[in-house]
Amino acid sequence: MSSVRTGEMAKLTQLIDNEVFRAYATYTTIVLIKMMLMSVITAFFRFRRKAFANPEDVSSFGKGENAKKYLRTDADVERVRRGHLNDLENIVPFLGIGLLYALSGPELSTALLHFRIFAGARIFHTIAYLTPLPQPGRGLSWAVGYVVTISMAYNVLKTGLYL
Amino acid sequence: MSSVRTGEMAKLTQLIDNEVFRAYATYTTIVLIKMMLMSVITAFFRFRRKAFANPEDVSSFGKGENAKKYLRTDADVERVRRGHLNDLENIVPFLGIGLLYALSGPELSTALLHFRIFAGARIFHTIAYLTPLPQPGRGLSWAVGYVVTISMAYNVLKTGLYL
Amino acid sequence: MSSVRTGEMAKLTQLIDNEVFRAYATYTTIVLIKMMLMSVITAFFRFRRKAFANPEDVSSFGKGENAKKYLRTDADVERVRRGHLNDLENIVPFLGIGLLYALSGPELSTALLHFRIFAGARIFHTIAYLTPLPQPGRGLSWAVGYVVTISMAYNVLKTGLYL
Repeated sequence: MSSVRTGEMAKLTQLIDNEVFRAYATYTTIVLIKMMLMSVITAFFRFRRKAFANPEDVSSFGKGENAKKYLRTDADVERVRRGHLNDLENIVPFLGIGLLYALSGPELSTALLHFRIFAGARIFHTIAYLTPLPQPGRGLSWAVGYVVTISMAYNVLKTGLYL
Repeated sequence: MSSVRTGEMAKLTQLIDNEVFRAYATYTTIVLIKMMLMSVITAFFRFRRKAFANPEDVSSFGKGENAKKYLRTDADVERVRRGHLNDLENIVPFLGIGLLYALSGPELSTALLHFRIFAGARIFHTIAYLTPLPQPGRGLSWAVGYVVTISMAYNVLKTGLYL
Repeated sequence: MSSVRTGEMAKLTQLIDNEVFRAYATYTTIVLIKMMLMSVITAFFRFRRKAFANPEDVSSFGKGENAKKYLRTDADVERVRRGHLNDLENIVPFLGIGLLYALSGPELSTALLHFRIFAGARIFHTIAYLTPLPQPGRGLSWAVGYVVTISMAYNVLKTGLYL
């Protein structure tokens, strides 16, 4: 049985050895880690601004009204949360469409162009949101990532449309 | 090396050439593009209603109090945002469970039935949310997509359970 | 053509027959179903507390002010929704990074350890959020799932980095 597993592994390894797929794996992992960082930044601002959402989160600050005053929204916390949600809204399509695009047999150089621009745009979007930079910086970085995803979607449908 | 890549590509192409997988790719791309449209509709209503979330988004409307009055929530904007979040909550499970289902070797006709009903239900859900149509239209379309996803999950676990 | 399809299916089946991939499929399906349950729990609390978000959802409760009073937020509904959003923020990275990790050829025992701890941590997180359990129960379960995902991401980048 062990040899069977090795044989199967060899086949799976062909997938991860494919350069386009490895590029997809690399950039997807990078943007997902970037998105995960938003959780840590949210927690950081919640503690710094003492602005929490759940009674059990503030019980260590005292009892009754003493603790309740920390159950509040804070402008900086909400800003990070909006950035996090915007990541979800845009990185989920990249995750799905990017995978299908990577499996549709694109040129390596074209695929790398898509992945790199998307990752760069999303990293810039986060910087623009948290600084904050004046508009249209954030808006443009959102649009760039959006257009890259639509371009990959177009290639997926062109290669493999099956309705 | 180029021939190695070609060989690997051939193997990947076998995946995208598989009809069930192509159907999954097509319907996943469609529902993800539909979800991405919600961002554009949100932006459209934000500009039309002049209801924004970030100070830097309204700075072009003037200074101080003149601009601040546009930092507000609007019923239509919030409605689109709820529809967008509902998409995320339901399309993410479809993305993951659907992929595993497509790889579990279902009959093409059964798979197409699942994918088509899911995509139709989610498109109707958006129409019902944005019109808005009277209930239980939206509720039923949500339930149909939900049941389709559970049905695919059941097939994945039946085929490949490994705890 | 039918024989071609059978040939392709055989190749796909090699993927679903791989033990690491089957384990990924199983645990991903479990955590996605768990996440989907949050929708049902939200709906349950919305009806029980009579706290809805859309005018069309309350029209069966009467007309005008009679119905409008049910358009409100409720602490328990909001708690479930926060738990749901936290699932999205953490299960989406697991979905993507876990898939790439499963395809990177890890040892079965190591992979199972990652998947089982992640699934257990997320199930505990939901219990801790909905009960609610005193902190740091929920915080720790979030952190465990987070660290497991980072560990898988590290393995993906170590195996297949391609920038």
